[in-house]
Amino acid sequence: MEFTAKQIADMINGRVEGNPDAKINTFAKIEEGREGAISFLSNPKYTPYIYETLSSVVLINEDVELTQPVNCTLIRVKNAYESVAKLLQLYASMMPQKTGVDPLAFVSKTAKIGENVYIAPFAYVGDNVTIGDGSRIFPHVTIYDGCKIGKNVTIHAGSVIGADGFGFAPNQEGYDKIPQIGIVVIEDNVEIGANTCVDRSTMGQTIIHKGVKLDNLIQVAHNCEIGENTVMSAQVGMAGSTKIGAWCMVGGQAGFSGHIKIADKTFVGAQSGVISNTKGNGEQLIGAPAIDPKIFFKAQAVMKRLPDMYKELGMLRKEIEELKKSK
Amino acid sequence: MEFTAKQIADMINGRVEGNPDAKINTFAKIEEGREGAISFLSNPKYTPYIYETLSSVVLINEDVELTQPVNCTLIRVKNAYESVAKLLQLYASMMPQKTGVDPLAFVSKTAKIGENVYIAPFAYVGDNVTIGDGSRIFPHVTIYDGCKIGKNVTIHAGSVIGADGFGFAPNQEGYDKIPQIGIVVIEDNVEIGANTCVDRSTMGQTIIHKGVKLDNLIQVAHNCEIGENTVMSAQVGMAGSTKIGAWCMVGGQAGFSGHIKIADKTFVGAQSGVISNTKGNGEQLIGAPAIDPKIFFKAQAVMKRLPDMYKELGMLRKEIEELKKSK
Amino acid sequence: MEFTAKQIADMINGRVEGNPDAKINTFAKIEEGREGAISFLSNPKYTPYIYETLSSVVLINEDVELTQPVNCTLIRVKNAYESVAKLLQLYASMMPQKTGVDPLAFVSKTAKIGENVYIAPFAYVGDNVTIGDGSRIFPHVTIYDGCKIGKNVTIHAGSVIGADGFGFAPNQEGYDKIPQIGIVVIEDNVEIGANTCVDRSTMGQTIIHKGVKLDNLIQVAHNCEIGENTVMSAQVGMAGSTKIGAWCMVGGQAGFSGHIKIADKTFVGAQSGVISNTKGNGEQLIGAPAIDPKIFFKAQAVMKRLPDMYKELGMLRKEIEELKKSK
Repeated sequence: MEFTAKQIADMINGRVEGNPDAKINTFAKIEEGREGAISFLSNPKYTPYIYETLSSVVLINEDVELTQPVNCTLIRVKNAYESVAKLLQLYASMMPQKTGVDPLAFVSKTAKIGENVYIAPFAYVGDNVTIGDGSRIFPHVTIYDGCKIGKNVTIHAGSVIGADGFGFAPNQEGYDKIPQIGIVVIEDNVEIGANTCVDRSTMGQTIIHKGVKLDNLIQVAHNCEIGENTVMSAQVGMAGSTKIGAWCMVGGQAGFSGHIKIADKTFVGAQSGVISNTKGNGEQLIGAPAIDPKIFFKAQAVMKRLPDMYKELGMLRKEIEELKKSK
Repeated sequence: MEFTAKQIADMINGRVEGNPDAKINTFAKIEEGREGAISFLSNPKYTPYIYETLSSVVLINEDVELTQPVNCTLIRVKNAYESVAKLLQLYASMMPQKTGVDPLAFVSKTAKIGENVYIAPFAYVGDNVTIGDGSRIFPHVTIYDGCKIGKNVTIHAGSVIGADGFGFAPNQEGYDKIPQIGIVVIEDNVEIGANTCVDRSTMGQTIIHKGVKLDNLIQVAHNCEIGENTVMSAQVGMAGSTKIGAWCMVGGQAGFSGHIKIADKTFVGAQSGVISNTKGNGEQLIGAPAIDPKIFFKAQAVMKRLPDMYKELGMLRKEIEELKKSK
Repeated sequence: MEFTAKQIADMINGRVEGNPDAKINTFAKIEEGREGAISFLSNPKYTPYIYETLSSVVLINEDVELTQPVNCTLIRVKNAYESVAKLLQLYASMMPQKTGVDPLAFVSKTAKIGENVYIAPFAYVGDNVTIGDGSRIFPHVTIYDGCKIGKNVTIHAGSVIGADGFGFAPNQEGYDKIPQIGIVVIEDNVEIGANTCVDRSTMGQTIIHKGVKLDNLIQVAHNCEIGENTVMSAQVGMAGSTKIGAWCMVGGQAGFSGHIKIADKTFVGAQSGVISNTKGNGEQLIGAPAIDPKIFFKAQAVMKRLPDMYKELGMLRKEIEELKKSK
């Protein structure tokens, strides 16, 4: 497949600057550009590369001002990131997609599988599981008995849906296991990364609402709920019964205490520890325990001076004592 | 299966308040109650739900005083959490349990498997592994050669027992691998969550003692030892050769440096970093590096005021200088 | 297999102190020594054990001075840790190694597999994957389509190579997936632990350069690059497009922001959060956000006194006000 800059520009409502007949047949990162490739510039950090890239065509935001001439043909668009996403989607839609239940998968006879579902070799689908139309289950995914997977859900390799929640009651000699008789419900259009765990509920449901995107190696404990279109980066952990609202963004390695409620559109920085309910929608939180980012970063800046502050405090004390004496 | 409130109360030594003939046939969370369900109230945070739950019966501690009338029948018990655990156990014991080695599992001919063991499809049990009676090995668990699993052990999907410890000695061009010729020993009644890793020892054994409960996505490095009945939440990490005592509780995402000793009954808060030996049994630790929780929370409270303190310190300095001059 | 202390000393250029005919036939940790075993003493923390070990032979550094007589035969060497590594390698090289593609593995017909490769039961090797000579792929590893694995690479159980990078562009109703059409390249002599994830690139390659050692449960996001011989402990997380130099050492549970560059020989402490480019080679970083370890540890030491500092500051303010009044 080969396209001209002009053809590409037409697909994404862009405007060509340079040679409209420049030909491209592949994608490349701007810093790894080569002839015949189309690249994009979105993150300002990468701007210097536009002057040296070998790519034939580069997507760039309308409002970026360049200070030197460039060798490539530019396609000016409103949002270069969205435009490259659209092109990648067009490209991906032309690639053959795997479908069907692979003979090396294990699918219980009592599971109900929708249409156009892909279930990879070594995926495990337990008793009474339901999987909606168009969903894709990659190798080594385990879906325990009774869990419900919606439509157009993607679960990447090694993720575990519906293992027992972590519940034990202490007794004299050790612990009694609290049986986890609930399930996991994953709604439509959810994507779950690799080696992520979503535990079944003690009773009732652990729920991942529609459109949620979970990265790799995330822990979602029993009885949790994640609201629509919330996005979590890798290695986040949620303790039991915590409810997160819709359209939240959670940075990597952040953690949430159990039994708390996080409102819609909350932003949680990487490695933060959220230990209590949020106060309202749209809050920003960072640090452990998590606080307002402005306060956090100010405090962090002063942190480095703490030892000096400690010394200064001692000196002021001495000087005051001397002032008192000399009165 | 249907039971009356009276029948349930008799099973758990409870006392009925309300209709002893109220019928239940399922469990529900108190906040998701419905007719015919039994719920429980243990965490005080959930008390408001008791006035509005639709559940027919609710287990509640003897000493909880209610301030309004309730629609449900109450069963008063000493410890509602323990009582619901007991009921769930009774319920679970009536459910059919999977047993036997699934034909889709891989079990080495030299492995020794006890009685009443369940080994799921796609579980891998290596050479010379032993698995004690009543243990359950879920899909995609890997047990490397030579590891020993006790009786009544549960290992959830995707966990890896006995992969090589992380040992490399630097040389001029890179690293020499230090072969890991030890094993992992998991004693009786241990439960291990999903996608957790317990590495084999360089020599000798990595040991998980009896009754230990490990949640999901935990890292136990080579040569570690975890004492009886210690409980660890998800995403905890232990570096090599660290020994943790009995009856400890470790919060999610906490980490331990290598080659340290943690005494019995130590409590470690979530996201803490423990970098040295504890001083004695029953210590509480939080923060990174981990310190006494009282000091930690006081210091955290003051942290937010650090920028103000820094300014105030500067002002005091000025005022003292002026006082000195004006003498 | 049985060897005398003299024979062992000859293999590793050591010098016998004690009985050259002492016989050994196994390895043991010094604290778990027994007759017929060889142990080693490298970490000074373990020195007390040399006086009580039951091992027949102990490897020890030339320069360690002992203050009491020992029961065991010593072999004095330049570096006991390197010597035991060498012995373990000799031992391991005498053990039978598994090779070949197990019939229970899934290997795509379009994959290219080198010589002397081991592919375990339930490993998944996708379309157009290449695996170089001498590599070992353990159970439940997933290698997605198109990824390239070099020679003498080891990938432990449950790791996932080439799952989709985490890329989504928000729209009005949710998110558009940004197809991830790049691959993962893993160069020669890399070792990857269990349940680690290396995501495929959006376009181009996510690269793990030769000699890199990754522990368990690590997250390497799309478009990342890790330089030669860099070593990362368990549960480290790298956000997208970050590039780490050669010969770096990264402690467990540390995290890296996206789109940053870490120079060669950087040392990052456990649980640190690195949020910006390093300034040059050989930097040491700890804390979150990560700073110079000297400043970090000084500040941490003062942290505990923060509440006292706050009080003292208040008292100084009062005393100054009084001094001013009394003038």
